[in-house]
Amino acid sequence: MPGKESQKRLAHEWFCKLQDQICTALERLEADADPSIYSDRPGKFQKTAWQRGTGNIDEGGGTAALLKGRVFEKAGVHVSRVWGSFSDEFRGQIPGTEDDPHFWAAGISLIIHPKNPHVPAVHMNTRFICTAQSWFGGGVDLTPVLDVDRHQGSFDTIAFHQALKTACDAHASGDYEKYRAWCDRYFYLPHRDEPRGTGGIFYDRLQNNWNDDLAFTKAVGKAFLEVYPQIVTRRMKEKWTPAEREEQLIRRGRYVEFNLLYDRGTTFGLKTGGNVATILSSMPPVVKWP
Amino acid sequence: MPGKESQKRLAHEWFCKLQDQICTALERLEADADPSIYSDRPGKFQKTAWQRGTGNIDEGGGTAALLKGRVFEKAGVHVSRVWGSFSDEFRGQIPGTEDDPHFWAAGISLIIHPKNPHVPAVHMNTRFICTAQSWFGGGVDLTPVLDVDRHQGSFDTIAFHQALKTACDAHASGDYEKYRAWCDRYFYLPHRDEPRGTGGIFYDRLQNNWNDDLAFTKAVGKAFLEVYPQIVTRRMKEKWTPAEREEQLIRRGRYVEFNLLYDRGTTFGLKTGGNVATILSSMPPVVKWP
Repeated sequence: MPGKESQKRLAHEWFCKLQDQICTALERLEADADPSIYSDRPGKFQKTAWQRGTGNIDEGGGTAALLKGRVFEKAGVHVSRVWGSFSDEFRGQIPGTEDDPHFWAAGISLIIHPKNPHVPAVHMNTRFICTAQSWFGGGVDLTPVLDVDRHQGSFDTIAFHQALKTACDAHASGDYEKYRAWCDRYFYLPHRDEPRGTGGIFYDRLQNNWNDDLAFTKAVGKAFLEVYPQIVTRRMKEKWTPAEREEQLIRRGRYVEFNLLYDRGTTFGLKTGGNVATILSSMPPVVKWP
Repeated sequence: MPGKESQKRLAHEWFCKLQDQICTALERLEADADPSIYSDRPGKFQKTAWQRGTGNIDEGGGTAALLKGRVFEKAGVHVSRVWGSFSDEFRGQIPGTEDDPHFWAAGISLIIHPKNPHVPAVHMNTRFICTAQSWFGGGVDLTPVLDVDRHQGSFDTIAFHQALKTACDAHASGDYEKYRAWCDRYFYLPHRDEPRGTGGIFYDRLQNNWNDDLAFTKAVGKAFLEVYPQIVTRRMKEKWTPAEREEQLIRRGRYVEFNLLYDRGTTFGLKTGGNVATILSSMPPVVKWP
């Protein structure tokens, strides 16, 4: 097992590599889109580096990659590597900070809001966190925005779950049924008694064998990188109606409600001095609450 | 001083009367709008009654009045009168529930999102709450959506504050400077280091002389009823550009962020079985996070 500093380096290198691969894959889909359906020019990712810490204090930072395109109305693929000390308010909420408030965290976080209502939105986040303990966490979940696609029997959802099951089954750290149920519990809007999407996987506090934990985290990223572009390729050819666009914009409101009311990453990030622009780049580009 | 049951009746009657007066005033503005600027037909309020409680248990309810118009893209003016018991989770957060979880609450709540970016959005809420204690609370605040109007020197903001100051100064319960500062503190987005709007007043736990507390609460409602239509009448005649509309839609995103991340009424209502459709009718009709 690599030492702690090597673990941090290896994890961060993977997140950066995955960011590059995902950006390349999404730009290829932008370029390949049928201009009779997508008349704008293909979008490209804009990368913005940001730093954490005030004054001369270096507390890391990250690279935000944002695409505003014709297929992907808004896609954010962000990598960060930050460190510092938790305030008293947040100590005790985070394992391993009872005696020492220092932390180090790196991760990749992605949200994609396609323009075409037939193409599901998607979210992925994987991370490696070090306090006095260290662990991996993360998840991937799919959000079809039309009611007609929002069920377990839809082709996209079946393909998505199958890819994640394959990734889980290949690794000792990957407990598919447990992580799938965890995802269903987490991405849920109690005030509306509605799931956010059609599921995926969610896991946290993964601290088994470090090498296998990293390998599993890589497998989750690779599974996303394979299955989501396949779904987009298939569905982006379908034309949509104004009524379907309206349904999409209203469904996106649920996404906003979830992220601002319940999502730990969003609320935690905003309250601990995270990068506001990056955190809120998860917000959909246009939303309706009619 | 009226007995407790009379207090409840008198407070609720006022909220209902104010709802009617506000709906009438807003419908008149809809009717009077210049059709060369507002080409749609004038909007009318739709009223929907809702009940709280499950099965045969009567826990009150309310009347939601919603207008989707040409001047007011979305306006909700709601009255509710509810009672029940707080769950253990919320006892202790509410004064007077330490020994008895029962509560009774009535109030009026209003949010207006005009179509014209030159016309400020506005929020008002006043309420009378009874536990083992009883008190009035509420507030009114203005949210100009264009940067050019978002300062204390703007004509609308000066007129708005002046009307509230006059209402406060006429009543022993009305401490204008205190309530204005309270509003500035409350309607603030720490993650963006931005105020939500240009202020107003906010007060809570008002339990001085009941008759004066009610009179002050009425004065706040009447001040709103007088000054906001004046602001709308003046600004609704101004035409707007697509760039101003874009600025408005982005500014509305801050309104969503505030309500879902911080607003106690919204988060408390959603977590205590409030009427979801009514609570979230505060969401703007169209929003952008580009």
